[in-house]
Amino acid sequence: MNEFDLIARYFAPLAGEGAFGLTDDAAVIPPRPGHDLVVTTDTIMEGVDFFAFDPPDTVAKKALRVNLSDLTAKGAVPSHYLLSLMLPPSIASGWLEAFSGGLAEDQALFGIALLGGDTGRTEGPLTISVTAFGHVPSGGMIRRSGARPGDAVYVTGLIGASAGGLAIFKREKHVLPEAERDALVARYRVPEPPVSFARDLRAIASAAVDVSDGLVADLGQIASASGVAITVEGEAIPLPPSLRAWWGDSAIPRAATSGDDYQTAFTGRPGLSGPFTRIGTVTAGEGVKLLIAGREAALPRTGYRHF
Amino acid sequence: MNEFDLIARYFAPLAGEGAFGLTDDAAVIPPRPGHDLVVTTDTIMEGVDFFAFDPPDTVAKKALRVNLSDLTAKGAVPSHYLLSLMLPPSIASGWLEAFSGGLAEDQALFGIALLGGDTGRTEGPLTISVTAFGHVPSGGMIRRSGARPGDAVYVTGLIGASAGGLAIFKREKHVLPEAERDALVARYRVPEPPVSFARDLRAIASAAVDVSDGLVADLGQIASASGVAITVEGEAIPLPPSLRAWWGDSAIPRAATSGDDYQTAFTGRPGLSGPFTRIGTVTAGEGVKLLIAGREAALPRTGYRHF
Repeated sequence: MNEFDLIARYFAPLAGEGAFGLTDDAAVIPPRPGHDLVVTTDTIMEGVDFFAFDPPDTVAKKALRVNLSDLTAKGAVPSHYLLSLMLPPSIASGWLEAFSGGLAEDQALFGIALLGGDTGRTEGPLTISVTAFGHVPSGGMIRRSGARPGDAVYVTGLIGASAGGLAIFKREKHVLPEAERDALVARYRVPEPPVSFARDLRAIASAAVDVSDGLVADLGQIASASGVAITVEGEAIPLPPSLRAWWGDSAIPRAATSGDDYQTAFTGRPGLSGPFTRIGTVTAGEGVKLLIAGREAALPRTGYRHF
Repeated sequence: MNEFDLIARYFAPLAGEGAFGLTDDAAVIPPRPGHDLVVTTDTIMEGVDFFAFDPPDTVAKKALRVNLSDLTAKGAVPSHYLLSLMLPPSIASGWLEAFSGGLAEDQALFGIALLGGDTGRTEGPLTISVTAFGHVPSGGMIRRSGARPGDAVYVTGLIGASAGGLAIFKREKHVLPEAERDALVARYRVPEPPVSFARDLRAIASAAVDVSDGLVADLGQIASASGVAITVEGEAIPLPPSLRAWWGDSAIPRAATSGDDYQTAFTGRPGLSGPFTRIGTVTAGEGVKLLIAGREAALPRTGYRHF
């Protein structure tokens, strides 16, 4: 199958308005009056971000959702994406069919459409780049730099589930019931960024960040960009109960310093309530402290580093 | 050097307005009233699109320019780009310094700025994805589908120079003087898409396409999208004189079916003059014919295929 047939068969059915059925050199995004376009790009790679044996539809969803997570943390409502696929010779048509099926499911779930992309062969690992687009009211993108002393710190969803899933794949010893094991693996494979929360987030967040490199490291980005200190109360971090049972005392520091959560951490006035958990406070100063039993925890590492 | 240091050192100095110094999860593109945003993405890979021994600044320029070529063919004036870099362990800081220097030179030349991106490690070949943005007046993007019988066919620049450069790297026998050899190699390494011609192109083109897969194959995209036939007069194709001397009778069919030219082919009314060459005509029917000495040439292949 040549490149054009491959695009026509698996990807043209996913194309939205402005994509011209993926038959042109480029795509068009008409301006949305009163809005800014927010854009982000993230690449996932076999052996680093997913495994060769992962189901293709989950790989597709992960590639999309790591980008939707960035948009969500900025308060942007997603609309379109570009897809760049570098395929090793081992990828067959069945894989592509399941992969494009995963994209179709997430397009329906999140109300987004494919705008264009690029495909090529590689002798290296399967590599998937997504560039995602979303909109915010003009000037309304949530920055990392707006946290102020007196703000509280919040996080959506659960932290550490993906790290638990990865530990299972790495054959770390556990006695988890099958359902709990599967739940952790599912979060590693398919993140659940709080996409529908983006609009509400704009109304309440003074600063926000996508939790992808580890909660403490990512809050460090807010602290640094805002010129403030952040203290996280370890016991307040929302962990999957199975991790507390499995990892014991190390569950909190591990969860707070692992990557791949794809939740949103944000600051705002104290006393907010909604689909999130209060985990700390913003004060004058610099850096991020993780308190466990009232004492500053020594952290194993401060988040995932690619280099 | 970790990912954040690498970005701060080599890429933050290239960041434009809306990029927040590459310190946030995403970037912002404010709407330009009365304009559409045009977006395209293309990936280049070591061993496929460039060689490991190519100078890093030329690799940077090729990664950018293959995308600027797409925008130009659509009549769009480029403004920003995103950069996704997957780096093998062999890449050292000297390489990155020269690479970012090449980006800086092209940013100045084309009036564009870096908006954001992603970096990661790979065990595979060096892989560089660029997503490029440009603007056209609302509804003004040139499509592939507007060619009509009676139009003439034109192309900018020279066709085949890049194929000549690649043949030199592949040790095809030649007796070219050093200056001519270097000129062909330079076009393989650094394409010269007619970026400044985009505005004028909008006024005269009924359809246009980026010449990247081979002139005949790319004109086939116009023929197919427009529902017309195209006849190319082989002797009219603007070839570097050195290729005619080197390749003899096969120069025209080879140049017309090799990839990597990154010029713009377009259709418009007959009798146009400007920085381009008339090479053929549009008629009713379908497909593309290449005439050489008045007879239809049997083509070795119809353009580069990735699969």
